[in-house]
Amino acid sequence: MNFSSKLIEDAVNAFANLPGIGKKTALRLVLHLIKQETDIAEQFADAIVKMRKNIKPCKKCHNLSDTPICNICNNPRRDAKTICVVENIRDIMAIEDTSQFKGLYHVLGGVISPIEGVGPQDLNIDDLIERIKNEKATEVIMAISPTIEGDTTIFYISKRLKDHDVKISTIARGVSFGGELEYADELTLGRSIVARIPYQKHGK
Amino acid sequence: MNFSSKLIEDAVNAFANLPGIGKKTALRLVLHLIKQETDIAEQFADAIVKMRKNIKPCKKCHNLSDTPICNICNNPRRDAKTICVVENIRDIMAIEDTSQFKGLYHVLGGVISPIEGVGPQDLNIDDLIERIKNEKATEVIMAISPTIEGDTTIFYISKRLKDHDVKISTIARGVSFGGELEYADELTLGRSIVARIPYQKHGK
Repeated sequence: MNFSSKLIEDAVNAFANLPGIGKKTALRLVLHLIKQETDIAEQFADAIVKMRKNIKPCKKCHNLSDTPICNICNNPRRDAKTICVVENIRDIMAIEDTSQFKGLYHVLGGVISPIEGVGPQDLNIDDLIERIKNEKATEVIMAISPTIEGDTTIFYISKRLKDHDVKISTIARGVSFGGELEYADELTLGRSIVARIPYQKHGK
Repeated sequence: MNFSSKLIEDAVNAFANLPGIGKKTALRLVLHLIKQETDIAEQFADAIVKMRKNIKPCKKCHNLSDTPICNICNNPRRDAKTICVVENIRDIMAIEDTSQFKGLYHVLGGVISPIEGVGPQDLNIDDLIERIKNEKATEVIMAISPTIEGDTTIFYISKRLKDHDVKISTIARGVSFGGELEYADELTLGRSIVARIPYQKHGK
């Protein structure tokens, strides 16, 4: 692309360096900011710099937070005995959006993957084990992707906890709510038959 | 979406306010910036603020520029007698990318559109006419979209120039180079037959 201005070129490149944004989209965003008041661009830049400078992982659960201990860990109304183990902070947001979980979280930062060179020591597993023991957690919910790497990670953590009295569960896997059976993939459908649940009859 | 941090929420909203970027994409971009060094986010923000503060329309052609007169208008090797009229600066970039034009540009800032309430007075037409007269331009090339609004704009400008000795041309319209006839739309194909060009025979 042929830019008549170095400043526009720099700004376009800054956007285009972000994942999933190409040069054409970047240019569209830059031209949009040029059309707005100068304030808008400044507020935009300010929000990003402030966020980047002040966001740190929560010391307890590794969720991203602007305070040393995150909002969720700090909330006295949440059940500190139940810990939901997730891969990343996006999973926390997704679970929080459901409003179905009132315990605390623990972010692993990924899953064990020999192919990608990720071992247990690269993840926040040691302090998960410590936390479970120190805080006398009664249940650990593994909300980990149903993949081979995810299953390996769950297996590894459960092995580390085998001498410790804590209930370990995984989130239910099966066909989507509202989904049509014919569109579910074979593996999911197969597993959902193997892991069928007794039906609660009325009046029982 | 449920953000555990106000700062992340602000940054996500800043991105999500840009056109074509939704909340999920915005979050992905923010998490990407968190993974990078603090420097990267600062350079990103800096490029945007600097660009927004210093970019102004070129006083001559209304191209965006970091100097009062843009690189193209300032270039003594370009032909100042030929002015290519375009709707917006993206069109300049597209034409510059072809390396087929060595004259100067004039950005209208849009086209005449009664439906959208855009009249000739909202566009940079008055100073185009003045420029053509003052600079004794010999040719004005209308590189305007082939739409009703575009045609109206070309008609309006040509009327304003009817007593002035300048050649007015429009860019050629027809089937795309390398395009297959069966996929060209009817209007384009129809026009390209009406506006057929004499074939240059070899040896003539």
